[in-house]
Amino acid sequence: MTKTRGAALDVALAYHRAWTGGDFDLAMTYIEEHMVCLAPAGRLDGAEAFRRFMAPFAQSLTRSTLLAAFGDEETAVVMYDAATLPVENAPGAECVSVRDGKIVHMRIVFDRAPFEAARRAAMPG
Amino acid sequence: MTKTRGAALDVALAYHRAWTGGDFDLAMTYIEEHMVCLAPAGRLDGAEAFRRFMAPFAQSLTRSTLLAAFGDEETAVVMYDAATLPVENAPGAECVSVRDGKIVHMRIVFDRAPFEAARRAAMPG
Repeated sequence: MTKTRGAALDVALAYHRAWTGGDFDLAMTYIEEHMVCLAPAGRLDGAEAFRRFMAPFAQSLTRSTLLAAFGDEETAVVMYDAATLPVENAPGAECVSVRDGKIVHMRIVFDRAPFEAARRAAMPG
Repeated sequence: MTKTRGAALDVALAYHRAWTGGDFDLAMTYIEEHMVCLAPAGRLDGAEAFRRFMAPFAQSLTRSTLLAAFGDEETAVVMYDAATLPVENAPGAECVSVRDGKIVHMRIVFDRAPFEAARRAAMPG
């Protein structure tokens, strides 16, 4: 794991440690109320929409490894490997903007394909 | 776009500029012959396998924006927005390890779901 220091990076890492450590309520304390998240399925407006998107993923996490984390005062990028209950190989990358210690913008990139395949496989019939 | 300096970052950015600028042969000069790429579909071994994976994506690129780029001497992370002929919204993130000016390892994260949907939509019948 490689990292450089910066205020935004500290917040990104604190958020990352919280949700990968199983404390999603703590993770949400780093999310600004009116944040915007650009996720693969589209734009999420506000912390509550973000929670509905991210909490199920966090709850299904079985293992994670931080691959890289870099940032400066305003922006940070984190890439991680993750294993979840439905999908064993689910890496992700986040680019966050931070203001006053909270994440105000997040671009999250991950592959939805294996999650869709897992969902299809779990369907009856 | 946010970036910090570092030898690995310089190489990651030179590679990025080359392939997004339409010069894939130049991009490949930054790829080490025995490199390993961990892509959503699995592991690619060597520059030739990497070229077969990445060249079609690069050739279909219609627009791109660098969102963030950070790195140090050995590692860099780049996140970008991309539009391609089959998929309008195709952001990606790459974490690269660099040795002697060439990329020896790349982890690339992107969402295959819209590409699979475009492929299905293009199928006859």
